[in-house]
Amino acid sequence: MDVRAAVAFEAGKPLEVTTVQLEGPRQGEVLVEIMATGICHTDEFTRSGADPEGLFPAILGHEGAGIVREVGPGVTSVEVGDHVIPLYTAECRECEYCLNPKTNLCQKVRTTQGQGVMPDGTSRFSIGGKMLHHYMGTSTFANFTVLPEIAVAKIRKDAPFDKVCYIGCGVTTGVGAVVNTAKVEPGSNVVVFGLGGIGLNVIQGAKLVGANMIVGVDLNPERKAWGEKFGMTHFVNAKEVGDVVPHIVELTKGGADYSFECIGNTTTMRQALECCHKGWGESIIIGVAGAGQEISTRPFQLVTGRVWRGTAFGGARGRTDVPKIVDWYMDGKIQIDPMITHTMPLEDINKGFDLMHHGESIRGVVIY
Amino acid sequence: MDVRAAVAFEAGKPLEVTTVQLEGPRQGEVLVEIMATGICHTDEFTRSGADPEGLFPAILGHEGAGIVREVGPGVTSVEVGDHVIPLYTAECRECEYCLNPKTNLCQKVRTTQGQGVMPDGTSRFSIGGKMLHHYMGTSTFANFTVLPEIAVAKIRKDAPFDKVCYIGCGVTTGVGAVVNTAKVEPGSNVVVFGLGGIGLNVIQGAKLVGANMIVGVDLNPERKAWGEKFGMTHFVNAKEVGDVVPHIVELTKGGADYSFECIGNTTTMRQALECCHKGWGESIIIGVAGAGQEISTRPFQLVTGRVWRGTAFGGARGRTDVPKIVDWYMDGKIQIDPMITHTMPLEDINKGFDLMHHGESIRGVVIY
Repeated sequence: MDVRAAVAFEAGKPLEVTTVQLEGPRQGEVLVEIMATGICHTDEFTRSGADPEGLFPAILGHEGAGIVREVGPGVTSVEVGDHVIPLYTAECRECEYCLNPKTNLCQKVRTTQGQGVMPDGTSRFSIGGKMLHHYMGTSTFANFTVLPEIAVAKIRKDAPFDKVCYIGCGVTTGVGAVVNTAKVEPGSNVVVFGLGGIGLNVIQGAKLVGANMIVGVDLNPERKAWGEKFGMTHFVNAKEVGDVVPHIVELTKGGADYSFECIGNTTTMRQALECCHKGWGESIIIGVAGAGQEISTRPFQLVTGRVWRGTAFGGARGRTDVPKIVDWYMDGKIQIDPMITHTMPLEDINKGFDLMHHGESIRGVVIY
Repeated sequence: MDVRAAVAFEAGKPLEVTTVQLEGPRQGEVLVEIMATGICHTDEFTRSGADPEGLFPAILGHEGAGIVREVGPGVTSVEVGDHVIPLYTAECRECEYCLNPKTNLCQKVRTTQGQGVMPDGTSRFSIGGKMLHHYMGTSTFANFTVLPEIAVAKIRKDAPFDKVCYIGCGVTTGVGAVVNTAKVEPGSNVVVFGLGGIGLNVIQGAKLVGANMIVGVDLNPERKAWGEKFGMTHFVNAKEVGDVVPHIVELTKGGADYSFECIGNTTTMRQALECCHKGWGESIIIGVAGAGQEISTRPFQLVTGRVWRGTAFGGARGRTDVPKIVDWYMDGKIQIDPMITHTMPLEDINKGFDLMHHGESIRGVVIY
């Protein structure tokens, strides 16, 4: 079938909105009509060519929501008409990873997903007979896409697509890092580096679980009001305080119980660790650093009780946890609407990238 | 009173066995007759001058066992005649750290301890009227020493001093890292870097809790037999396998569930992290690195689920946990006797340092 898509033909070039061809779902796969998709820094990381594993040409996009329109043979967990959120981290519930309660990194379709193809090794997307790569197993920058059934989370039908698409990445990554990875306890002091589309969700996750101080760190003074909207109690403008580590240690009277790095900068990753409280502070890396970059610290930081960990997709098991986060949104426990600062039709998707680039949007969403 | 001590007058010089003066215990302090003391790499780290915080002249030694001979005013938790193990990590049970179940790093006497004095800011040791520094709050290289009562663990009286002194540091550090810090589960695969006085105790800790594979890594082929004595199932000679990380990942079919660095080398610290299993592997730094040295890795290692942490004194709360470890030894759950390879009188303490230097001893013990 013909579908509308924004295609990344080459690294560093704007996306091209055009008509491409999509094959129907095969064994264990589903066809989903994408109703809305967010634009995330990870899409830009790949589009720009900075991602050393980026494949072109490809259909990017990994933060969508839509409706199942067709199911392939053997599909049992969803049916036509179900509302779903595509999952770039699948949940097969039978691999070694899914069966280990300590991780959410299902490996069932990981290898082929990284190669930009479906689990059978082929792509469903093409243009004029030429193969297009899938991206993160989701390719939500097309109004229809095909996914393995283990890579869709079935959600309630009254949830608005143009809001809950954000749960496909940013919301779950931020809130989940607090709830699933760090397991922040009520009364904890939390420090968040980077108040963008992830950091603000870390803030509201920290508020949700009853954190005490919620300190936001950013270079952009306009992000102070943004942070406060979601529960931030203290703002640190890293440009204004000299060395940010002793400043935060003093502000929190000893250091963060939990810190979160939501930027992808190895210098702030080190700061995030070192501003943690001696004895028990844990720092969680969420941001994705550039290729080849390394984090460093003195081992004394760890020997005196700090813990360094990371998280992907907020430690969430998609099919299990994403529907719960949709419920939290529908119940008013977390906010999404104010973070969706811009919406646009697919034709204007490059404008959405520009807004993100200039720090003008928290989240831009394409509505099909 | 006059006591016999091995004094470190200057960095880099051998210890000098001589008579020094010791004042009696003040408020909250106890006088302990040291019956035996181990010689540990940390003593050597300071003696050699490598420790940037080392103070001289000082009476080193931190791995002792003895008998309370006098108590100062206000002492309530021990009495004359009690058998005790001195604690370089005190347990006051009332500071912010003691009241937080996540840490064992009691801070009550930390500052003065680091300054080589008792909590009131003065030293009990002197020679010819000249002040001598305490070391790690313990100074067990003297046949009598004075400690705060919160820095002694009362133990059973049938435990032999010349063996349980080792619980004052090495045994607790190694076994505790497994039991308290990593909380290794039965069936886990464990990798231990460095099979010396700490690493062998990590091995027996892993065996105690029912680990599956217990892989030891060392450069010294003679350590293979040593590791096997305490439960090691596989030996890796790091000299013989090329890159040790992929070798261990293959050997453990995916990586270590837990790894322990017991050397103090920042290169092996990185290897220990990177040989951990994706999704859940945790690496625990036990070894103390040289001044100013840093650990590094790609943040991707953490984002994909590995955890980097450290431990001091095996995460043990001394007054609470050390008596339990003495029980484990007396009940045959852990071994100590074979690790005490050499004993000597105080006069020969420098020979004990030489044996450690040449890798000939696992543990040398001074018996007073």
